[in-house]
Order: sequence, then structure tokens, then C-alpha cells
Amino acid sequence: MKKHDQDFMKRQNRLTVFQIIKNEQPISRAAIAKQTGMSPTTVSRIVAELTDEGYVHETEEQVSAGRGRKSSLIRLLDTAVISIGVELDRDRANIGFVDIQGNVLCSESFSRPPNEEASTTVARIGSTIEDLIATGGIDRKRIVGIGVGLPGIIEVQEGIVKFSVQLGWKNIGLADLLQDVTGFQAVVDNELKVKALAEQLKGSAYGSNRTVLLGFGNGVGSALILEGEIYRGVTNSAGEIGHTTVDPEGMMCDCGKAGCLQTYINIPSLLSEASKIKPVRTIEELFAERRAGTHWACYLIDRALAYMAITVNNVVSMYNPDSVILSGEILDKFPEVHEEIVNLCSRYVWEPLQGSFSIVRSKLHEEGVMIGSGMVAQDRYFQLN
Amino acid sequence: MKKHDQDFMKRQNRLTVFQIIKNEQPISRAAIAKQTGMSPTTVSRIVAELTDEGYVHETEEQVSAGRGRKSSLIRLLDTAVISIGVELDRDRANIGFVDIQGNVLCSESFSRPPNEEASTTVARIGSTIEDLIATGGIDRKRIVGIGVGLPGIIEVQEGIVKFSVQLGWKNIGLADLLQDVTGFQAVVDNELKVKALAEQLKGSAYGSNRTVLLGFGNGVGSALILEGEIYRGVTNSAGEIGHTTVDPEGMMCDCGKAGCLQTYINIPSLLSEASKIKPVRTIEELFAERRAGTHWACYLIDRALAYMAITVNNVVSMYNPDSVILSGEILDKFPEVHEEIVNLCSRYVWEPLQGSFSIVRSKLHEEGVMIGSGMVAQDRYFQLN
Repeated sequence: MKKHDQDFMKRQNRLTVFQIIKNEQPISRAAIAKQTGMSPTTVSRIVAELTDEGYVHETEEQVSAGRGRKSSLIRLLDTAVISIGVELDRDRANIGFVDIQGNVLCSESFSRPPNEEASTTVARIGSTIEDLIATGGIDRKRIVGIGVGLPGIIEVQEGIVKFSVQLGWKNIGLADLLQDVTGFQAVVDNELKVKALAEQLKGSAYGSNRTVLLGFGNGVGSALILEGEIYRGVTNSAGEIGHTTVDPEGMMCDCGKAGCLQTYINIPSLLSEASKIKPVRTIEELFAERRAGTHWACYLIDRALAYMAITVNNVVSMYNPDSVILSGEILDKFPEVHEEIVNLCSRYVWEPLQGSFSIVRSKLHEEGVMIGSGMVAQDRYFQLN
Repeated sequence: MKKHDQDFMKRQNRLTVFQIIKNEQPISRAAIAKQTGMSPTTVSRIVAELTDEGYVHETEEQVSAGRGRKSSLIRLLDTAVISIGVELDRDRANIGFVDIQGNVLCSESFSRPPNEEASTTVARIGSTIEDLIATGGIDRKRIVGIGVGLPGIIEVQEGIVKFSVQLGWKNIGLADLLQDVTGFQAVVDNELKVKALAEQLKGSAYGSNRTVLLGFGNGVGSALILEGEIYRGVTNSAGEIGHTTVDPEGMMCDCGKAGCLQTYINIPSLLSEASKIKPVRTIEELFAERRAGTHWACYLIDRALAYMAITVNNVVSMYNPDSVILSGEILDKFPEVHEEIVNLCSRYVWEPLQGSFSIVRSKLHEEGVMIGSGMVAQDRYFQLN
């Protein structure tokens, strides 16, 4: 049982009221009180504070409050709070301004040489933010923080990148670096975890209680959102399925084990296998060979899709979610594979679990990580303020 | 956000106070108020109610409450509440009376022909309970319910066995049957889930926040306890790892897929593989062959242990727990395999996750399911009353 001191309770109540307004606006003070079990006085005090600070406002809309009385409705000011969302990947960075509803106000990206040092990447993020503020007419006072999503194992509390093969970083205090350069409070998180959160909050898994997002691209991973919260595990590594073993006699993986899931489905592995036969530099080239009916390309991609269906089975057996989102570069670039994976699931998913979940496409696509990172930055802000 | 009506809040507060007393006894009213954030008046009212009802009592012990005042401490009456815990397996049933601390007061078991009809098994459970009440001197008024743990997929809310290969049951309304025969309120749950809960509450994972229990025996399964609660998933099937695919080209499984984890490690599969060479009827015989150095027995068991270490890797990658409990018939009967599996983990667990969790032995062994089922029955009682 957590120790609730008074300050904590106050902050918690404030956050609760704020989130109810955010999720159910327009809403009356009475409805907030009913839902939270707080007293009408407490709710009114918190709403007044939030109004003074420019987060919410009373609208012209009214609902009947019984006996002919009317009660005003509260709404958020969408741009009352803005955060910066950053997606960092091996070879590019996408940076955008995100409002309280998760709308992207403006964005920009730059390409990044693999293994670029963190300080250089951070400096470039800093100057891109300044460009966007200038050209996008962003009100600097409204910016509450910056969130970054990237592939790897992240220590979220301190914002440390413990380990990212894709970026070539190890033990980088990224949040501190970002804070020093930009002046904004920074949060760092795993890309799939924030993407899953974004899809659950405003994308393809809206309304789901137990969402799994699978990402198939340069890496392979999963993320679980439980009742609106990221499931992290003890070291924020939950969902790292890339190195689950799917064939102990299989190919060697760069991690030193054999038969890791990622050796069958991530893009670098597919290209390296294909190149044993013919130089294939991009995933587009490999899919073009498949479309042309080249037998080894068909074999490689069919096998990868079968392993993706197996991944759905294995993840569903463990997490038992209501929704599975298929996402990642392979799905974004070749939308036709979604149907193929869904069809393969009828063969590879354990029969008692078939029908217990729906498989959906990602709705936010390339913007998912940026939006999710921005939202995580806002959450952190409201927890601390 | 849940709708908290006043009654719900009251019940919830009562349960909270009760659980704090249970976990931290002896404890003063002031300490309860501090931990829960409830007012001293509310805490005193709830403690008075619980005292009247014979659940708790004020002890002679006292703590200083400042300025020379003394404050009395509250304790549970261990036998204020008793429940019946039942472990049901393919070929036997264990039935015991469990007090509020999870102590087994008395127990009895009977063997059960596989595929025995549910009504027959329930009738036998009913008469065993009556025997135990008579011979064990159990106060019938104190019995708050009966909990049953069994292998299979269970609809917990209604207490329906959707599907149990081991018992040969499908869509059995077991809770209703039990309630009709015994007169006690009944809960039915998956055996590994209740066993994991028992280990976390009073066994080898005491104090853990994220516990995974693995069960290796007639079936293969896992259960996750998150901050003291069973993680169920949407259809209570979370942790059903027996049919995760570990080799798509592997042996056929009775579920109709190939290469399911259970085909490499559950007892029936091991015996059926061994019997291709020589009739082997029990797991003891197979281990005796291994001890004698028979090469195929060594191969089969070594392979099974490697797959158990792979299971640790796959489960840890997905749930990222702080503790993993190895349990089940194979571990109970051949305790030496624990060390072997732990050693294999250094080869099969992904390097970044090594050291993020501890591997422990089950502490409650054969009593785990019985104790856990009894505790689940008590939880249900306190939620409803």
C-alpha cells in the first residue's frame, strides 16, 4: 500500500480531475464529483485553479442539473499545453509539437548517420525545435516539456538510454542532455511503448483495456497498455520479444543466442539472408522480387509473415489482450501484408484464443511515436505540477 | 475511470483496512489512518465493526503515541475466517481448510479417475468437506467459502470451467455445482494463478511486486502476479504458454499446431517420446533411466531442461518480472533439476535481462494451489461483504 501524504493526494486529485475533463469533455463539475467521489467543493476549487492557469475554460454549453437549474460545462483549451514529441530512429529523427489532444501542430525531420554521437543528435534536435518555434508560431510559454521515443532499453525515471543497438548508444543520460540544450523538462521512453499509448489514447485501439502493439521493422518488439497505462516491468523491458527463442536450433543472432525471433523477421536479417543469393539493399527491393515471383524472395517473406503470425500467437497467449495492433515499417510500406498475417493467424493462433482479440492496423503510422512521446511528456508535467 | 458510488467506497475502505491489518499486524489505528489517508474517525468506525464481527481484536501490546500517550495495537483473529481450498488435478483432488494467514488447518485427498464427471467429483468433494469438519473440529459458522484451483481456462466471474484438457471438462458451471452441494459460496480459478498468488503472499516470492510462476508438470503454464494481484487478461487466459510456438517445424501437438512448447516438456509428451524406444510409464522411470546414463533418456530430459530455460527467457522478455518461481511436479519430484535450469539460463536468457530477476524454488509445493484457492475464496468473501 502506497503512503499517501496530503501533497500527493492533492496532486493526484488535480491530475484525476484534469484527466476526466480531457477524456470526457465537455463535462459538468457535478459529473466530475460523481465520477471521482470527491466533494463538489474540492472539484470546484480544482477547476478554478485549472481555469486560472489557462488549462480549462467554462463553455457556453449547459446541461440540466435538475429542478430547472443549469450547470455549465468545462472544456480544455487545446493549446493550453503543448509538448514536443521526438521519434529517434537509427537513421532519422522526427520532431513535432503536440497539443493536449495529441494533434500534431507542426513537425520537421532530419536524417541521422547511424552511430552519430548523442551530443550531436541532441544539438540538432535543439536547433530543429528553435526553427519550428519560429516558423510554426508556437507560444514558448505553453511548452511543458519534451518526450523522446527510441528503440532500446530505457531507464524511464532518470531518462537514461541503457542500451540501444539501433542507435549505437549505451548508458547515455539523454534526458539531462536534452534538458541542458533545450531548457525543457525531458522524458525518454521506448518507442513502441509510447506508440502503443498513442494508439490506445487516440488511434486504432481507442477504448481498449488491454492493448498489445507489435512493431515489425528494423527491430521487433511489443508493448502492452493495461487500462490506459504502459506496462513496463521492473526494468522497463517488458515486451522485448525480439530475443525470445522461436527455434533453439535456428540462426545465430547478434546477441549470441540462436533462433531469436528477430533473426526471422527484422529488416536487416531479411536483407542479409537475401544477399546470400543476390545483393539486395532495401526492403522495397526484396518485396519487388517477391512480387516478381522470385522463389527465394517468396520463401523469405512467407517465412517472415508466418513468424509474425506466430508472434501474434505467442504474445496473445501470454498477455491475453483484447486488441493487437500490427505496426512498423514493414506494415507501413506494404499494407497488403496485414491481411496475409491475419489469414495466417487462423493457422498459428491456439484455437481457444481465436476470437478473444481483434487484430487492427495502426492508425497513427509514422506519427505514432512522436504523438506518444509528446503525450508522455505532458503526463510527466501534470504529475509533477 | 471507475464509477465510485458511496457503497463501493465503503466496502473498499473496509477491505483496505482489513488488508492492512492482515499484512502488517500488530498495527495501531493511527498507523492505519496514516497509511490509507482515511480520517481517524473512519478508521475507528471500521475497526469497531470488524471487532464486533469477530474478525479482529485489540491486543495487550501498545506503542507510544507521543506525549506519553499509549496506543493499542490491532490483530486479526487467525481463525475468525476459514475457507476451503481445493486443488483439482487430472487424477486427484486435495482439500484443505485454510485460515486467514494461509495456514492449512487440516486436509485430505482422494484419487480421481481421469474424465470423471464433474457432478461425481463435486459430490466427493462435498463429502470430504463434511468428514473434515467432523474430524477436524472446524467451526462451520466461520467458513466463508470454497475456492477451487484447476488446470484449464476458467471464466472466473461465473466460475465456469470453459476448457480443461487435463480434467476432460468443457463448459462446466463448477461454482454453481459446488455451491448447490456444499452450501458455501464458491470461486473457481486456474491452478497456477492461485498458486502464484499464494507464493507471493506467503511463499517464495513474498515481497515481490512482479512475480512469474512457471509450472512444469502434466501441463506447462505460467502466471503473473502484479502488485499483489493476479494478471488475468481479457478471458483469464494470460500466461497460457503451453501452446506458444517454440519451433514451427516441431512435433505435432494435440491442439493441431506444430512445435508447441508443451510437446517438449510436459510429462505426457516426455513419456510418449520415451515409449518409442522402451515402455516408460512414469516420470520416475524416465529419470531413473537418465541417472543410469541411458543416452536417449539423457537426451530427452536435457532437451526438456533446455526448453525450460528457454521458457524462462521468453517469459522474462515479455513480463520483465523481479522473480521467477520454478514449480510443478517435475521440480517437486526431482529438486536437482532446479540448479540445472538455473545454469542453463546463463546460456538461454538474453544478456541484458540477466540479473534483472531472481529464480527461486517454490516454497509451498503441493500445498500451493490449495492455499491459493482458499485465499481467493476469502478475497471474494471480503469483496462481497
